[in-house]
Amino acid sequence: MAFGIVLAGLAKGLVASPLRDVSTPKYLDVAEKIRREGLTSEKAYAFLERLTKAAGLRLTGSPQAAAAVELTRAMMAETGFETWLEPVTVQHWVRGVETADIVSPPGAEIQSLAITALGWSVPTPAGGITADVVEVGSFDELAGRAEKIKNRIVFFNHPMDRTLMDTFRAYGEAAQFRTRGAAEAAKFGAAAVLIRSATFRTDRNPHAGMVQYDPVVSRIPAAAVATADADALSRLLQRGTPVSVHLNLDCQTLADVKSSNVVGQIRGTEHPDEIVLLGGHLDSWDLAVGAHDDGSGCVQAMEALRLIKSVSSAPKRTVRVVLFMNEEFGATGGRDYAADVRRKKERHLAAIESDRGGFLPIGFGISGSPDQFARLKILEDLLRPSGIQWVRAGGGGADIGPLGAQGAVLMSFIPNAQTYFDVHHSGLDMLSSVHPRELELGAIVMAIAAYVTAQEGT
Amino acid sequence: MAFGIVLAGLAKGLVASPLRDVSTPKYLDVAEKIRREGLTSEKAYAFLERLTKAAGLRLTGSPQAAAAVELTRAMMAETGFETWLEPVTVQHWVRGVETADIVSPPGAEIQSLAITALGWSVPTPAGGITADVVEVGSFDELAGRAEKIKNRIVFFNHPMDRTLMDTFRAYGEAAQFRTRGAAEAAKFGAAAVLIRSATFRTDRNPHAGMVQYDPVVSRIPAAAVATADADALSRLLQRGTPVSVHLNLDCQTLADVKSSNVVGQIRGTEHPDEIVLLGGHLDSWDLAVGAHDDGSGCVQAMEALRLIKSVSSAPKRTVRVVLFMNEEFGATGGRDYAADVRRKKERHLAAIESDRGGFLPIGFGISGSPDQFARLKILEDLLRPSGIQWVRAGGGGADIGPLGAQGAVLMSFIPNAQTYFDVHHSGLDMLSSVHPRELELGAIVMAIAAYVTAQEGT
Repeated sequence: MAFGIVLAGLAKGLVASPLRDVSTPKYLDVAEKIRREGLTSEKAYAFLERLTKAAGLRLTGSPQAAAAVELTRAMMAETGFETWLEPVTVQHWVRGVETADIVSPPGAEIQSLAITALGWSVPTPAGGITADVVEVGSFDELAGRAEKIKNRIVFFNHPMDRTLMDTFRAYGEAAQFRTRGAAEAAKFGAAAVLIRSATFRTDRNPHAGMVQYDPVVSRIPAAAVATADADALSRLLQRGTPVSVHLNLDCQTLADVKSSNVVGQIRGTEHPDEIVLLGGHLDSWDLAVGAHDDGSGCVQAMEALRLIKSVSSAPKRTVRVVLFMNEEFGATGGRDYAADVRRKKERHLAAIESDRGGFLPIGFGISGSPDQFARLKILEDLLRPSGIQWVRAGGGGADIGPLGAQGAVLMSFIPNAQTYFDVHHSGLDMLSSVHPRELELGAIVMAIAAYVTAQEGT
Repeated sequence: MAFGIVLAGLAKGLVASPLRDVSTPKYLDVAEKIRREGLTSEKAYAFLERLTKAAGLRLTGSPQAAAAVELTRAMMAETGFETWLEPVTVQHWVRGVETADIVSPPGAEIQSLAITALGWSVPTPAGGITADVVEVGSFDELAGRAEKIKNRIVFFNHPMDRTLMDTFRAYGEAAQFRTRGAAEAAKFGAAAVLIRSATFRTDRNPHAGMVQYDPVVSRIPAAAVATADADALSRLLQRGTPVSVHLNLDCQTLADVKSSNVVGQIRGTEHPDEIVLLGGHLDSWDLAVGAHDDGSGCVQAMEALRLIKSVSSAPKRTVRVVLFMNEEFGATGGRDYAADVRRKKERHLAAIESDRGGFLPIGFGISGSPDQFARLKILEDLLRPSGIQWVRAGGGGADIGPLGAQGAVLMSFIPNAQTYFDVHHSGLDMLSSVHPRELELGAIVMAIAAYVTAQEGT
């Protein structure tokens, strides 16, 4: 049946002739072996359990992030990979006390808002600030109320658009208020900003994320509000009487820290300096253990390489796992990796990133030239028996992006993301939110794609 | 973009000419409206919350099943549907005490096995039975040990095959020991059977299900064992010393009960006697509220009709929801519905069943003649924007099957089932295991398919 699918793919003319042998029964057999080993062992989840339980919250620059570096290197060494660390300079922001209390009117349905400081946020002055709240739903609305913003707390209450099937698009539209809201509000003299959390769910879990300040505008404190609290605050504001909030944040930005990307590999037998990279990012937010974001991506990359090792002691080209540090605070891990002097002796043919959660595999995105895409589209026939529905043009990721500029074909593993933003950047991103079998299927898909690419090139 | 997809579909020659207008922007627009209304309201989950909280466990024949009949009829009436009940005769089996204790050897790693009686199981004699356990992995192995079976408890320990992507197939292979194990073991004189639960997970939740006795073989007590307990029992047996278990079941089969299928509909304006049916089954197992099996199917059917009502006060043909009673104990609801004298005045064009869990939509199966399939395949282009990846030949369901024999096109909603058997028939099939957005997407898909079929016929 699987072979029939390959023939159907050939019949549709999807396959350029030079790579036709990629679809030979040899690869179907290997893909089947990888899938069987993965589904039987579910080792990705065992890796994730160890990572999340032993290293915990892994905010970039933190002692836990440093522990995760040592732990994952040890895990990869135990699995039989060649391992090393590469230096990354990372920022070190730390959360402190964070409270937002409704001072007036008295008797509101909610008194203390569930908030969390955004990454990079400056603190409030000691003791906090008290100011009236102005709610806006967009930057246009902010500009339209320019004269009412000065010394106020601006409350960006833009919900994620539930009608979009592409939840990353809905997230992107909502998250612009988190990233740019403080800078835009500060232009009009705002004292601070509160941002509705980017999730479809109505609950009391604030969702963190970075704020991006504008170098020429003053930096004001910025925090995310849980969606249930945002709704309550909005209802209170609709009464028409002023709502005053006391906001207290004592987060701090400390000195930069020396950290590491963690590398594990199996050296290629024929072209050891040609690399197929499997990656995720090791740092997480600090409200939960980052089981999906991006613990899943890290353990899927490790497990994919273990699966390759289980079917082939050494592929023709080097397959390398890189667990990138500091994706959440500027993706310096990916930048420093690509810029490292070691890269001069290497050629990265392809890089596959998993950073969209550890859910059911749906699709696979591939960038590269039209010819490269046409040749790699044959992966669709090899990945379909493991649950991939389609392979489409368009791949990338924050960490592997710089390698694309150096000529690597970028590939994205695309899982079901209908529920991802429920947990993303929040206290809900716990081990229990990841399913062992769905997580493993992602590792299987990545293993097959990496193995075939390592054998055939791009 | 959605229109571009339709053109691609036409270009591929998937569409027979008579129904080409099914793909007109009119239906794309309606499909979009249904999707937006569904994703914004997530009413399917509100229905499910009410059903599971108010009616609870809904074992066929139970007072809760009767309460669920009244409740769901009221819910559909409140939603503006024409409603009525149709009679179904159902069996009434009740669970009682159920224990399985390891009598010897002493000091085993486990003393009390987590078990649950299978539906239809006869009780043990009062006070229970004590017998040595014989483990087998297959019916061949059972036959090979024929002389060791008499008066023993046969322990069928056949795990679901994790390497299969089609989890229903893995379930089907494992569940044959649940359905036929007692009859096969009784042929060799077994005193009772214990069956490993059909799930990939290793936990202490036994999974219920029906046992099918053979009319010419004596009926022996039958219970499912949780997988973790099955593993522990197997390890104990591997020591080589006899393992004796005291099994006590006092389940009973009571007199048959008069129950009902629950019907709600919107009458067609042009062909009121031509029916497009949306169905699920209202009864559940009694270890949890059957949130997935099949509360999800019931509320998706109701929500699909509500969505149709939200975009069209009345379709051309009648769209009818039927919540079938007694799927789990023999599917008499579907049988009695199809056989009812009312059907003589009606023609069921199509029936869509949801009984594979309330997870992310993946595909849609359609039975019918090649011509009907070719014409309805255009649904693929209308369903894809709501997440459906493919429409394939092959549809059906335990409840709607008898309508197929009467000429109805049968359609199956096919969600992601990688995690379904974690909860299926067990105490884990709770409301919290269902995701509002994924559940709603199924209702949306069913609504679009039913609406287009009601407008265009088959």
